[in-house]
Amino acid sequence: MPYNTIHINPISPEPARASVLVIYTGGTLGMVYETKGKQLVPFNFEQVIEKVPEIRRLDFEITFLTLNEPIDSSNMNPEIWIELAKIISDHYEKYDSFVILHGTDTMAYTASGLSFLLDDLNKPVILTGAQLPIGVARSDARENFITALELAAATNEDGTPILSEVCIYFNSHLLRGNRSKKQESSDFNAFHSENYPLLANAGVRIDWNLPFIKPFEKNKKVKTQSKLDTNVAFLKLFPGINKQVVKSILGIEGIKGIVMETYGAGNATTEPWFLEEIQKTIERGVIIFNVSQCDGGRVAQGHYQTSKFLKQVGVVSGSDITAEAAITKMMYVFGKETDHSKCVEMLKNPMRGEMTI
Amino acid sequence: MPYNTIHINPISPEPARASVLVIYTGGTLGMVYETKGKQLVPFNFEQVIEKVPEIRRLDFEITFLTLNEPIDSSNMNPEIWIELAKIISDHYEKYDSFVILHGTDTMAYTASGLSFLLDDLNKPVILTGAQLPIGVARSDARENFITALELAAATNEDGTPILSEVCIYFNSHLLRGNRSKKQESSDFNAFHSENYPLLANAGVRIDWNLPFIKPFEKNKKVKTQSKLDTNVAFLKLFPGINKQVVKSILGIEGIKGIVMETYGAGNATTEPWFLEEIQKTIERGVIIFNVSQCDGGRVAQGHYQTSKFLKQVGVVSGSDITAEAAITKMMYVFGKETDHSKCVEMLKNPMRGEMTI
Amino acid sequence: MPYNTIHINPISPEPARASVLVIYTGGTLGMVYETKGKQLVPFNFEQVIEKVPEIRRLDFEITFLTLNEPIDSSNMNPEIWIELAKIISDHYEKYDSFVILHGTDTMAYTASGLSFLLDDLNKPVILTGAQLPIGVARSDARENFITALELAAATNEDGTPILSEVCIYFNSHLLRGNRSKKQESSDFNAFHSENYPLLANAGVRIDWNLPFIKPFEKNKKVKTQSKLDTNVAFLKLFPGINKQVVKSILGIEGIKGIVMETYGAGNATTEPWFLEEIQKTIERGVIIFNVSQCDGGRVAQGHYQTSKFLKQVGVVSGSDITAEAAITKMMYVFGKETDHSKCVEMLKNPMRGEMTI
Amino acid sequence: MPYNTIHINPISPEPARASVLVIYTGGTLGMVYETKGKQLVPFNFEQVIEKVPEIRRLDFEITFLTLNEPIDSSNMNPEIWIELAKIISDHYEKYDSFVILHGTDTMAYTASGLSFLLDDLNKPVILTGAQLPIGVARSDARENFITALELAAATNEDGTPILSEVCIYFNSHLLRGNRSKKQESSDFNAFHSENYPLLANAGVRIDWNLPFIKPFEKNKKVKTQSKLDTNVAFLKLFPGINKQVVKSILGIEGIKGIVMETYGAGNATTEPWFLEEIQKTIERGVIIFNVSQCDGGRVAQGHYQTSKFLKQVGVVSGSDITAEAAITKMMYVFGKETDHSKCVEMLKNPMRGEMTI
Repeated sequence: MPYNTIHINPISPEPARASVLVIYTGGTLGMVYETKGKQLVPFNFEQVIEKVPEIRRLDFEITFLTLNEPIDSSNMNPEIWIELAKIISDHYEKYDSFVILHGTDTMAYTASGLSFLLDDLNKPVILTGAQLPIGVARSDARENFITALELAAATNEDGTPILSEVCIYFNSHLLRGNRSKKQESSDFNAFHSENYPLLANAGVRIDWNLPFIKPFEKNKKVKTQSKLDTNVAFLKLFPGINKQVVKSILGIEGIKGIVMETYGAGNATTEPWFLEEIQKTIERGVIIFNVSQCDGGRVAQGHYQTSKFLKQVGVVSGSDITAEAAITKMMYVFGKETDHSKCVEMLKNPMRGEMTI
Repeated sequence: MPYNTIHINPISPEPARASVLVIYTGGTLGMVYETKGKQLVPFNFEQVIEKVPEIRRLDFEITFLTLNEPIDSSNMNPEIWIELAKIISDHYEKYDSFVILHGTDTMAYTASGLSFLLDDLNKPVILTGAQLPIGVARSDARENFITALELAAATNEDGTPILSEVCIYFNSHLLRGNRSKKQESSDFNAFHSENYPLLANAGVRIDWNLPFIKPFEKNKKVKTQSKLDTNVAFLKLFPGINKQVVKSILGIEGIKGIVMETYGAGNATTEPWFLEEIQKTIERGVIIFNVSQCDGGRVAQGHYQTSKFLKQVGVVSGSDITAEAAITKMMYVFGKETDHSKCVEMLKNPMRGEMTI
Repeated sequence: MPYNTIHINPISPEPARASVLVIYTGGTLGMVYETKGKQLVPFNFEQVIEKVPEIRRLDFEITFLTLNEPIDSSNMNPEIWIELAKIISDHYEKYDSFVILHGTDTMAYTASGLSFLLDDLNKPVILTGAQLPIGVARSDARENFITALELAAATNEDGTPILSEVCIYFNSHLLRGNRSKKQESSDFNAFHSENYPLLANAGVRIDWNLPFIKPFEKNKKVKTQSKLDTNVAFLKLFPGINKQVVKSILGIEGIKGIVMETYGAGNATTEPWFLEEIQKTIERGVIIFNVSQCDGGRVAQGHYQTSKFLKQVGVVSGSDITAEAAITKMMYVFGKETDHSKCVEMLKNPMRGEMTI
Repeated sequence: MPYNTIHINPISPEPARASVLVIYTGGTLGMVYETKGKQLVPFNFEQVIEKVPEIRRLDFEITFLTLNEPIDSSNMNPEIWIELAKIISDHYEKYDSFVILHGTDTMAYTASGLSFLLDDLNKPVILTGAQLPIGVARSDARENFITALELAAATNEDGTPILSEVCIYFNSHLLRGNRSKKQESSDFNAFHSENYPLLANAGVRIDWNLPFIKPFEKNKKVKTQSKLDTNVAFLKLFPGINKQVVKSILGIEGIKGIVMETYGAGNATTEPWFLEEIQKTIERGVIIFNVSQCDGGRVAQGHYQTSKFLKQVGVVSGSDITAEAAITKMMYVFGKETDHSKCVEMLKNPMRGEMTI
């Protein structure tokens, strides 16, 4: 995937504190008005200083890398995640941290996908974006962008980075990427993490929630993989779901994994035809991953009568994983591993802090 | 569907303020310990006074109607909704209000389904339940049940009921039923209504949010219908969703409507194969109803490039409807009407306050 | 109080939508770095376009009025409120709306004070500020300032202003000024209004909460008054408060009114010496205004044994007023009226939507 | 202070898990209807099983100790805190944990006061209460009481108590006592802890927030002290506060300490007369403790111009302490220690986790 880079020097005469690679993928944030008209067009990062002059006040070096073709968030896809992971991996030694500008619509999916792709990550990768373009007067874009840069450059007293995981920063809140969900399509306060605390809150100060941040590990070097398998789908249950619907989804040609969105703590109907379809599907080698329709709480298979059978036939519990992390984790696991029982093992255990056991 | 009824007289010597029909369907709330053991068994409502002696202090008459076979919330289905609507309709003149005890897992679906089934409703129908059984020491069941009864009996100064719609009461909050969602599987504070304010908050006082409560209409008599069509399904988008998955779901045999769970303000990928599949499906007469994966905010088709095409080919905007209300509204609309354009018209306009336009 | 004005023309060739007077009083928002150093100095509004170039994109006329000596929020006082009210009154015909840039520390007091001083107001007066200076990279100042301008210029379809009251805008939330409280000293989300809903939420769109906004009244012309009487004080109760403390505060020389911060729903100790001191103070003509230490809920004197006596001896209930509005309302009432029973009448009834009865 | 005790045996035939001493002090929770009338009267704990039959299902031993004269929360005072601490100390060996039933109005003060009085505490002391009486149908009392008992009996796997500090449990939330504040006078969700996370959330499960709970320390034995000095008062600042008010409060006869409620991060007016009064007061040996009017965030004296002087003249920073903990800490410190500089040292450092440094 072709891209351009531009380098911005801070105005401060002192040596820069850190060097950050900013990867612009597209999305609402990076929009400005055309010079004369009222039409929003993608941001030309060569004019970045003009639009956000404040970034030159930050005392660290910033390099902008822009994909030649900006991608609207709704068109984001796993191939680009692989490219993004490769860009980070290729530039890993040269930069202290990475900020990805991304549309909000699928940001939680991308953050989840990247968290799995970036194995042994020990530098910050922060995704941010905006609900309104950086080129309009009223906008959350400037604040989100600048704070993401500051967070990316934050270090402990010994010089190691505070963050060494994939995060989303949005509207004062720093969240673990694979714990995030876009919950609001209109509010500036758009992202939430119902089952994991904030990693930091940015107000007058940055308040870090250290017990919940992944600790830095020395002597690690990021590794990535070049395959994500998209033979996965959601099966969201609802009262009245009929056999034809269940059969068609479980029987999609080539499917390897299903994220089944169940009720409450992982419950499903106990009608015999349903249980039989689930059982037959598992016996065919398809993995069914049990994730709750509730944002908060966790799947506890076997607790209630209505989830006991699921456990018995081998449905894999997703615990408190988000739907976004569940579907991308499946893509990653099937891209990495073909052995069925190894896949199950990887799915049911936390890999990047995405679930609690 | 067979059922039993038991009548409880208040202890107060004064005439009762109101008469309430309590319909017990099953669910966590109605569990008690067996007399000797530690096993939870469904509540025997003949012993109700023993377990919740407080209800005799309420100064209104209560009749309990229990389905002969209690239904776990995960097994709730549209046929039972039709039965419940019929029970309410059959007892409409005899009681001032109706409280339905229901498992929490599918309560938002049932509340949505009933809101559509009960046309011209002008008495309160309040669903409640609990996260822990009424028969264990630590439980939210007693408070939820008793407050639901109090809300059901609340009247304006002129004696008309304050509420004349289907509501959910849970953990101090009264919500419009078809605006509700079970968001937490473990917290007592389980239900939320992201796009519509609370109808009331129950603390020391009941604080009513009158501007947002449906006004009482005189001279109405509830009507119901005996058909819900379950030829409906969810299609939840995700980055990387492949053609096989989309084709299989859109092509489910007999399907009449799809709730498509899109990104943000109703956006979807603009890949040509996807748009083509959508278009062909609509041309076949299947209705696609656009609902956001975000709990808050609303679908605004055409606002962004990535939703413009959806509008053009005739995808129906769900505005700020919940997924729960969308899928049940489709069942109701297809059960009522066969004309395609009338169905579209009903879907895109609010019918029971379930969406904003 | 001397001041300067600067006029900024929008770049748009079309006629301006509205004209706004921006009054800069001081505070964190209006700070920038000195050209060469790292020292924060008050904002020179002649350079405003340089620092917030976006404001020229707004299609309305903006005039900046800066007090010659910027006032830190902690030094704000009633004389300046009188000046501000006079500035608004003097410029009332010339401008469509007014934005006041103010330090956050006492903004809720100033908003309350101005709400009382500006009688018959029918144009928007919006206070805003910031937790971090406009002249640093990471800051909430730009967004707060620009959105306040947009809200100030918002009109109904008939051209009348949507807002015609004193408001605070901060971090996406528009609050009624005299219902506001600075609750957080570090978060960007600093202001709350526990007993009154948001007037608007600014996200992708501005979502107005119309049932709770004061309706526009035609043919009104603002009036103000030139006196606020500061012979008022707080008496905050606590378990163990001793007679010496109570006597000293109730007996402050020249005191006319006391805001007594009580417990819960307006309760106080019933120890005889305490009640006697309260009674004697009221008999001397001092007004005691009962306001709760709880942010939410309201004083309901007489409900509990522990507030019954307060009602009997003539303590005035503050209902759900904030401490900030209570103390400033007293200053206003005593500045306007000397008759004791008229003062009591004014205090116990809502004057500018500051309390609920 | 005279009291009675009653012992309740669990119905379970198995040995009790723990023994809890429940101390009933008075308050809304402990109210029931008279046998025949509608008048609320204090709970007779001999009838406790009749009103809350569930408590016999708890598998631990409960002893009720009721003060002979129930105390309304508004009349709570430091002498009773000393008595309560003595009761706990006297019964320390005999019971595993302690639950105090208390009115809500001053519960946060009592919890703070007890936290200081109970030195070297290593068993749970949990305060709870209710917004509505246990003897009315709709009430939060039963749930609060029963969950408090369960929390009090909770142990780690090695049998040590999970909690070994003074807590408040209310409406699903377990809070550190000296971090709590009654924020709502009407909602069931009444208590908040703005500057410290929940210690636990009680839903379907008890979710413990272990990193924030004080760890258990072996071989400790609680000590208490018999003196609290009430020569303390609040001085709450507001714009326009005049010299007479400030002088009268700072000059209260016998006063030893003042909790000065300042703006934002600990700011106050810099008017010369004010600073002079503060300075003279400190020189006289009175301690001034700087606490913010904002519930969230902390005092950072010296950060802004408007707090620099306060630091210089020796005002003691309260950091993020609550007003409730600040005033009771002063009573405790002055009751324990007469040396001025030792008092300052104790005030500015955390003693029971009540503040962050």
